[in-house]
Amino acid sequence: MQKEFTIAYIGGGSRGWAWGLMSDLASTPDLSGTVRLYDIDKEAALHNEIIGNKLKGREDVKSHFNYVAVDTLEQALTGADFVVLSILPGTFDEMESDVHAPEKYGIWQSVGDTVGPGGIIRALRTLPYYVEFAEAIKKYCPNAWVINYTNPMTMCVQVMYRVFPQIKAFGCCHEVFGTQKLIAAMVQDAKGIEHVDRSEIKVNVQGINHFTWLNEISYKGEDLMPMYREFAQKYAETGYTGGKDDNWMNNSFACANMVKFDLFNRYGVVAAAGDRHLAEFCPPWYLKNPETVKAWKFGLTTVSYRKEDLKKRLARSARLVSGEEQMELKTTGEEGVLQMKALMGMTTLVTNVNIPNYGQIPNLPLGAVVETNAVFSHNSLKPVFAGPMNQSVLPLVSRHCENQRLVVDAVINKDLSLAFKAFCNDPLMTANRTDAKALFDEMVNNTKKYLGWFGL
Amino acid sequence: MQKEFTIAYIGGGSRGWAWGLMSDLASTPDLSGTVRLYDIDKEAALHNEIIGNKLKGREDVKSHFNYVAVDTLEQALTGADFVVLSILPGTFDEMESDVHAPEKYGIWQSVGDTVGPGGIIRALRTLPYYVEFAEAIKKYCPNAWVINYTNPMTMCVQVMYRVFPQIKAFGCCHEVFGTQKLIAAMVQDAKGIEHVDRSEIKVNVQGINHFTWLNEISYKGEDLMPMYREFAQKYAETGYTGGKDDNWMNNSFACANMVKFDLFNRYGVVAAAGDRHLAEFCPPWYLKNPETVKAWKFGLTTVSYRKEDLKKRLARSARLVSGEEQMELKTTGEEGVLQMKALMGMTTLVTNVNIPNYGQIPNLPLGAVVETNAVFSHNSLKPVFAGPMNQSVLPLVSRHCENQRLVVDAVINKDLSLAFKAFCNDPLMTANRTDAKALFDEMVNNTKKYLGWFGL
Amino acid sequence: MQKEFTIAYIGGGSRGWAWGLMSDLASTPDLSGTVRLYDIDKEAALHNEIIGNKLKGREDVKSHFNYVAVDTLEQALTGADFVVLSILPGTFDEMESDVHAPEKYGIWQSVGDTVGPGGIIRALRTLPYYVEFAEAIKKYCPNAWVINYTNPMTMCVQVMYRVFPQIKAFGCCHEVFGTQKLIAAMVQDAKGIEHVDRSEIKVNVQGINHFTWLNEISYKGEDLMPMYREFAQKYAETGYTGGKDDNWMNNSFACANMVKFDLFNRYGVVAAAGDRHLAEFCPPWYLKNPETVKAWKFGLTTVSYRKEDLKKRLARSARLVSGEEQMELKTTGEEGVLQMKALMGMTTLVTNVNIPNYGQIPNLPLGAVVETNAVFSHNSLKPVFAGPMNQSVLPLVSRHCENQRLVVDAVINKDLSLAFKAFCNDPLMTANRTDAKALFDEMVNNTKKYLGWFGL
Amino acid sequence: MQKEFTIAYIGGGSRGWAWGLMSDLASTPDLSGTVRLYDIDKEAALHNEIIGNKLKGREDVKSHFNYVAVDTLEQALTGADFVVLSILPGTFDEMESDVHAPEKYGIWQSVGDTVGPGGIIRALRTLPYYVEFAEAIKKYCPNAWVINYTNPMTMCVQVMYRVFPQIKAFGCCHEVFGTQKLIAAMVQDAKGIEHVDRSEIKVNVQGINHFTWLNEISYKGEDLMPMYREFAQKYAETGYTGGKDDNWMNNSFACANMVKFDLFNRYGVVAAAGDRHLAEFCPPWYLKNPETVKAWKFGLTTVSYRKEDLKKRLARSARLVSGEEQMELKTTGEEGVLQMKALMGMTTLVTNVNIPNYGQIPNLPLGAVVETNAVFSHNSLKPVFAGPMNQSVLPLVSRHCENQRLVVDAVINKDLSLAFKAFCNDPLMTANRTDAKALFDEMVNNTKKYLGWFGL
Repeated sequence: MQKEFTIAYIGGGSRGWAWGLMSDLASTPDLSGTVRLYDIDKEAALHNEIIGNKLKGREDVKSHFNYVAVDTLEQALTGADFVVLSILPGTFDEMESDVHAPEKYGIWQSVGDTVGPGGIIRALRTLPYYVEFAEAIKKYCPNAWVINYTNPMTMCVQVMYRVFPQIKAFGCCHEVFGTQKLIAAMVQDAKGIEHVDRSEIKVNVQGINHFTWLNEISYKGEDLMPMYREFAQKYAETGYTGGKDDNWMNNSFACANMVKFDLFNRYGVVAAAGDRHLAEFCPPWYLKNPETVKAWKFGLTTVSYRKEDLKKRLARSARLVSGEEQMELKTTGEEGVLQMKALMGMTTLVTNVNIPNYGQIPNLPLGAVVETNAVFSHNSLKPVFAGPMNQSVLPLVSRHCENQRLVVDAVINKDLSLAFKAFCNDPLMTANRTDAKALFDEMVNNTKKYLGWFGL
Repeated sequence: MQKEFTIAYIGGGSRGWAWGLMSDLASTPDLSGTVRLYDIDKEAALHNEIIGNKLKGREDVKSHFNYVAVDTLEQALTGADFVVLSILPGTFDEMESDVHAPEKYGIWQSVGDTVGPGGIIRALRTLPYYVEFAEAIKKYCPNAWVINYTNPMTMCVQVMYRVFPQIKAFGCCHEVFGTQKLIAAMVQDAKGIEHVDRSEIKVNVQGINHFTWLNEISYKGEDLMPMYREFAQKYAETGYTGGKDDNWMNNSFACANMVKFDLFNRYGVVAAAGDRHLAEFCPPWYLKNPETVKAWKFGLTTVSYRKEDLKKRLARSARLVSGEEQMELKTTGEEGVLQMKALMGMTTLVTNVNIPNYGQIPNLPLGAVVETNAVFSHNSLKPVFAGPMNQSVLPLVSRHCENQRLVVDAVINKDLSLAFKAFCNDPLMTANRTDAKALFDEMVNNTKKYLGWFGL
Repeated sequence: MQKEFTIAYIGGGSRGWAWGLMSDLASTPDLSGTVRLYDIDKEAALHNEIIGNKLKGREDVKSHFNYVAVDTLEQALTGADFVVLSILPGTFDEMESDVHAPEKYGIWQSVGDTVGPGGIIRALRTLPYYVEFAEAIKKYCPNAWVINYTNPMTMCVQVMYRVFPQIKAFGCCHEVFGTQKLIAAMVQDAKGIEHVDRSEIKVNVQGINHFTWLNEISYKGEDLMPMYREFAQKYAETGYTGGKDDNWMNNSFACANMVKFDLFNRYGVVAAAGDRHLAEFCPPWYLKNPETVKAWKFGLTTVSYRKEDLKKRLARSARLVSGEEQMELKTTGEEGVLQMKALMGMTTLVTNVNIPNYGQIPNLPLGAVVETNAVFSHNSLKPVFAGPMNQSVLPLVSRHCENQRLVVDAVINKDLSLAFKAFCNDPLMTANRTDAKALFDEMVNNTKKYLGWFGL
Repeated sequence: MQKEFTIAYIGGGSRGWAWGLMSDLASTPDLSGTVRLYDIDKEAALHNEIIGNKLKGREDVKSHFNYVAVDTLEQALTGADFVVLSILPGTFDEMESDVHAPEKYGIWQSVGDTVGPGGIIRALRTLPYYVEFAEAIKKYCPNAWVINYTNPMTMCVQVMYRVFPQIKAFGCCHEVFGTQKLIAAMVQDAKGIEHVDRSEIKVNVQGINHFTWLNEISYKGEDLMPMYREFAQKYAETGYTGGKDDNWMNNSFACANMVKFDLFNRYGVVAAAGDRHLAEFCPPWYLKNPETVKAWKFGLTTVSYRKEDLKKRLARSARLVSGEEQMELKTTGEEGVLQMKALMGMTTLVTNVNIPNYGQIPNLPLGAVVETNAVFSHNSLKPVFAGPMNQSVLPLVSRHCENQRLVVDAVINKDLSLAFKAFCNDPLMTANRTDAKALFDEMVNNTKKYLGWFGL
C-alpha cells in the first residue's frame, strides 16, 4: 500500500519546520506525493523547493515527494489532503516589542509568544492571517486535515474553528515530549537502565498548550508518580539538568526544571512544558524580576539571540540550496508525518494534540482549545476523555482559556478594546489600568503595520 | 515481563463464559496467576476448578493459572486485580415468564433480556445482586478492574456506579464484533479478497449495548459507507446470510440482517447488533406478531431452546471434569484478556466498551451507560469522544437511556412503582395502563422469589 | 406614565387572535400606539383596520391605537417594538390532508397541528415562512420582541432562533391556563369556595408546548398535589367536565380530562394541556382507533367543523366592518398585552412561555424550545429554572424535542429526507417504512404548493 | 390569612442581625409564631429572649412572636419551618490574625472575611460548624428553609449542599442593595427627582457573593447603562460619596466607589458590592499597599474598630434587656422576612440570592454557589437564568469559584493541604511557595483552637 497525497505548506519558506518535515517525509516509506510551498517570502519558498527536490535522487530517502513553490493560497490549497501551517507573523522587530516593551513596567517575560502582554499582541498580529487561512480552506479544501505549528497555538486553532466550524484542524507541539524525556531520564537514573524512550513514558495529558499537565505517568505498567514526587523534592532547590533534549529545535532553551518541580510541589501534578513557558502562565511568582528568574534557573529568551540564530539559518539555507551542505536525514521527533499516516488509515495513533474541548476536559470551557491525548485513525481525530483538571490547578488554567477566548473575540469582532480587557486580565499584568493602557497602546503602535485588520 | 495477577470470577460455575476465559488465558503467553471461582452453585464452581486446573500440564497452554473455587464473595474479591461478573439470575422458569408472558397482550420479544417487559423484569431480578457486588468490591478490592458480561449489561454497569461511584467497571459485549464480521464479509464479496478480519474493519461506535450504531466504517483507509449503502439496498428485501459468526457462543442466533438493513435505509447509520436485539429497542415495527418476525427473517429465541442447550452444556461439563473430553483451545474472539493486558500496562488497546457517559456521546444523558470506543492503557480506561448520535437515531436511543435510569432508580430506591413506569414507557408496550399493570403484576409474581430486595 | 409603541401584526387579517388583541389593548389603560396589520390576504387586513379603528371613539375603550393595514413585511416591521406572529399557512384543504390522510393506515389524530404526521407536514408548510420572518426581523427590527401564536409553536420559535440567534422571540399558548382552570374548579368543589381564579393556582411548568407538565401546584400556600391525586383517581373512569373554559377560543374543544388523569395516574405529574393535544404526543394508547378515542371522551377535531367555524367568523367580520355588530370588550385571558407592559418596564411578570432551553430544564436538550415559567421585566425575558423533568415523563418528552429538531434541520437544510426520518419516528407512526414512505409522499403532494422552499 | 410558623435562629445571641430580624418581624402584619434562639453563648441568647419578648405588649408591633432561648441544636431545629444561620466563629483575636498576619509579606486586605488569606482561614474555622448544621438539619428538619447570613457566604452555603444535597438553603446579603442605592442616587442627581427607592432600580445580578456584577440596570423602563457609563467616567478620579447607605449595619464602611468605577471602566459591567469587598477579589491592583488603598479611597477594616464596635453593642444589649432603651422599630432593608412570606405562599418575590449554580450562570461551574435573581414562591425558590458572565469579567470570577470549591473540598476531606493550595492560588497571594507556607502555618496556628475538625 503506497499512499499518494498532497500537502499544502503555508509558511513554506520556513528554515526550520519545513526542513524537519522534509526530513521526516524522506525517512518514511510507503509515501509519495507533492508538497506545495506557499510563503509571502516567495524567494524563501523557492529555496525550499530546491532543497526539497534535491532529496529525490538520494539513496537514503525512502519516499518520493515533489516540492513546488506556489504563488497563491488558492494554488496551495486546492485539492490538498493536508495543510501545514507554520508562519512567523511580523519580524523580530515586532517580537522585540512583544518581549521587551513591558519591562519598563516591571513585567518580565521569558518567551512572549503565548500569553502575557507579548503573547496577546502577537495574537493580534497573527490571528487575522488565520481568519484568512480558515476562509481559504473552507473555499478550496474543506475536507483537508489542517496541522498548525504556529504560536500562539491555542488561539490560532481556535480562531479557525470560529471562522469555519467544520474545519478539521489541530495543533501540534513538542513540549510534552520534552517532559516525557525528562521523566525518561529520571527512570534511567533511578533504575540504572541504559535507554528509555520518551514514547515509553505513558501519560495522561490535560491542559492548554504550553501549560499542559500530566496527572498519570507510567512506564511499562509501573505508576511513576511516587518516583516523580521524590524526584521533584530532591531537586527542588538545585534543579536537574539531565534528560536534555538534543533536538535542534529545542536545545538552546535549556532549563533546570525548577519551575516544573515547584509547580509539582504545589499541586501534585506534573507540569509538562519548558519552564520558560510555564512561568508565563502563572502570577509573577517566577518572573518577578530578572533576579528571581535567575534564581529559578531558566532563561529569558532575548530577541537578540533569535536574530543571531536567524542569521545562522539563512546561511545554512544558502549552503543547502547551493549543495554545499547536504540535508542530514534524522527524524525530528515531531509526529506530523505519523499523524498523516494514521489519518490516511495506515495506522492507529494515540498522542497529544490541541483541538476544541468537546468535553474531554469537562471542567474547562467547551470550545476552548485544549491539549489532551486523541486517537488518530482513518479520516478521524477523536479526543480521549482526559478527565477534569485537578481542582487546585484548574483556576490557573481556566483563566487563560477565558482570556484567550476574549482575544479571539477581539479578532472576530475587529475590536481592540476587547483585546485590552484580556491584556489587563493576564496574570503577569500587575500594572494599574492607566499604565496598562499606555503599554497596550505602545505595543499596538509598534506592530501596527500588521493590524490593518483592526482598521489601523 | 511476566505479569502475575488474580482474577475473581463471580458466576464462576458458568458453563460458557468461564470456559471461554480459561481458553483465552491459556492461549496468552506472559501471564500467570490465580482465578478464583465463586458461584452460588458451588458444585458448578468446583467442576470448573477441576476443568481449569486440568489445563496446567498441557503442552499447548502458554500461561500458568491456578483455579480455585471459593465460598464467599469476600474470599473471591480480597486482593483481586480483576473481577469478572457473569451470572444468570434465576432459572429458565423465570426467563420463560420474561419472554412469553407478554405474548397474551400481543407483545412479542425476540430475546427478552435487555429491554422490553422481559428485560425490565430481568433487571429487577439481577440488579440487587449487582448492588451487593458493588458494595463488596468497594469493601474488598476497590482498586480492582471489574468486567461485566451479564445482561441487562447497561443497567448492571450503571447500578454499580450508582452504589460505588469510584468503581473501575466496564461492560463487554461481542455484538459489535458480529457486525464487523458482516462488514468484513461484504468487503470480501465486493473485492474478491480471501479473508478480511473483523479487527481490520475500523468503526466509530455510538449508542447503548445491543442498540449500538456505527457512523464511520472503513477498511485500510477506504470509507465503506458508500459500499454499505449499496449493500443494504441490495439485500433489503431478501436479507444476507454471509459473514456468519462461527463463534460457539453465537451461531445459534443467526439472522438475515434485514432489520439491520431496514434501519440503515431509514437512518443512514449502521445498526451494530444482532437483528433480534435491534428489533426489541424499536416500536413494534419488527415484532408486531410472529408473522412479521418471520417476514423479517430473525428468530424469537424460545426458552425451550435454551433449556435444551443447557442440557448439552451440563453433559459437556461432566465430560470435561471426567477427562473424557479435553478442552479445545481456541480464542473466543472476546477481548477480556487483551483488556487485562492493556490495563496492566503491557499494551495500548482501542476497542468498544460500556461505561458511563462522561460526554463521549454529548447528546445522550451524562451518566447513562453508553457503548463507544475507549483507550485501555496502564491502569486507565478512557472513552474516546464518539460525537453526537445522528439526530434521527437519537430519539430511539435516548428514550431507552432514560427508561433504564428509571429502572436503576427503582432498584436503588427499592420502589417497584418506578419500575412499572419504565415498563409502561417501553416502546414494545402497546397495552393500556390497566393491562400493563396486570401484566407487570403477573411477571413480578412469577419471579418474586428473587425480589426479596423489594420487600416481596 | 403613558407608553407609546408600535406593534407589527403578521397575519393581521386574522379573525380570532387579532380581535382578541384589539380587545385586550382597548381594555388596558396607559397604552397608546400603532398596530400595523400585514397579511397575504390584504383584504382581511383592511377589514381589521376598519374594525380596529372603529374602537377609537368608544367610551369603554381605555387606550388609543391606530390600526393600519400595510403592504409589505418591511413596512410592518421597520421600527416596530413588538412583532406578533399569528398565521394560518395553507387552507383547510391542506389541513384536511394533515388530519385525515393517515387514517387509512390506522393512524388517528385529534388535532394534527403539533406533532404526529399532520403536525410534521404542517411544519414543513409553515416553517419556511418563519425563516423569512426571522430574516426580515433581523433586517428591519432586530431589537423588537417577537410573540408567536402559530402552531406548531415549538418549531416556529425554534426555526427563528436558528436563523437569527439574537432574536428576542417567545411563544405563547393558553393550554396551561386551561389546566389551571381545571385545578381551580377542583379547589372550588373541594373547599366549597365560590370562585378561584386560574391565576391563583401557582404552578411550576415544565415540558414542551401542548405537552406541558406541572410538578408543583399550590393555592394560597397549600400544596394541591395530594388533592389532585385523589381527584385524578376519583374521576379516572368517568372523567370530569367541571371547570369548563368559557373563553370563546376554546369552548368547542371540550374534553373529560380522562387522558390527563390517566397520565397523572401513570406518572404522578400533572399533564397541562387539552386531552386532544396530550394524546397525540403519546404512543397510540389513546388514539388506537375511533372507539378508543370515544372511550377516553375527547374529540377528534374534524376539519369539517373548522370549515363551518370559519364561515361564522367571516360573517362576523362582515358585521363588524359594517358596524352591524360592535366588538364586545372582554379580555381574552391571553397574556400578550401584560407581557408587552412588562417588557416595557411597567411591571414585573412571572408566567409560562416557550423559548429555547438554556438549562431551565436541565435534562432536555439545550436549544430545544421548551415551556417553563419566565420573568418578564424591562427589555428582559429570563427563564426560571424549572428543574429536571420527572424521570418517568422524560422519555415521552425528550423524543419529541429530538424529533422536532430534526424537522427544523430539514427546513434549514431544505432536505425532505430528514423530515421523513422524523415522520417515521413519531410515536403515532405504527406503519412500516414502506407504508410510511407512501403516506409521506401523499401528504407532501397534497401540500406541495406550499413547499416551494424544498424545490417542489 | 394569618401564618403561624417557627424560626430556629442559630447564633441567636447576635447583637445585630438578631435585633434586625426582631424589628422586621414586628413590623410585618399577618405573621405569628416562635423564634428559638440558639447560641454557644447561651447568656447572649437569653438576653435576646428578653429583648424579643419585650416587643410583645407594644402597640406599634404588628405581629406576635415568642422568643425562647434553647440549649441544643436539636431543640432549636426540630419542627422548625425556617432556620436562620448567623454566627461569628472565633473571636476578634482570630479575626486579627486573618486580617493582619499577611501584612508582613506585603499582603493587605480590606475585610479578610470572604477571600484572600484571611477569608480562607476564616472558612477553615467556620465551615466545620456548617457541616454540623447541615447534618443536624438533615436529621431534625430536612424540609425547613435555611437562610444563611454568615461569611464566607459562598462557602458556608456550598458546604451545606455538599453534606446534605437536598437542603433548601440560600444565602442573603445586602451588598447588591448598596449598589442599587448608589444607582438610585445617580438617578436622583441626573433627573432632579426627590427620591428613588433602591427597589425601583431593576437589575440583572450575576456573580458570586461580594463580587457580584450587574449587566442590566434600568429605572421605570429606562436603560441606565449609558447614564452609569458617564457617571463612572465623571467620578473615576475623584470618587462619589452620594447615595450613602444609612443602614446601621453598613454606614461605617463608606467608600468613594472608585474601585467600582475603575472596574466599570475596565469591563463595562457594574460591580455590585462595596469597594473594600471588590478589591479583595482582584489581583493586588487596589491593595498593593496602604498608599494605594488610600488613593482608591476605601478603608481597610481594622479589627480594632470591630472591637470598639462590639463594646457599644454589648452596652446597648444591656440597656435593651434592662428596658432602659426601647428597640426602635425600623425595617432593616434586609429581605429575610419578605422571603419567608413568599416561601409560605403569601406572595411571589423576585430578588437576588446565593444558591448553587444549576446553570443560571452557564459559564460558571455547575454547583458553585452563585448570586443571581431568583423567584420565591410557595415552598419554592428557583433561580432566574442570569445569562453568561461577560467574557472579560469571567476569569476574575471563575478562579474564585474554583478556589472556593477547593477550600470546601479541604473541609469535606479534612485535608489542610488542599486549603494551602487554595491559599497559594488566591489573587492576593504574591508570595512564593515557601513564604506562603510559613504564613499559612502561622495563620492556622493562630486559629488552631477552632480547627479540631482537621485533627489539630
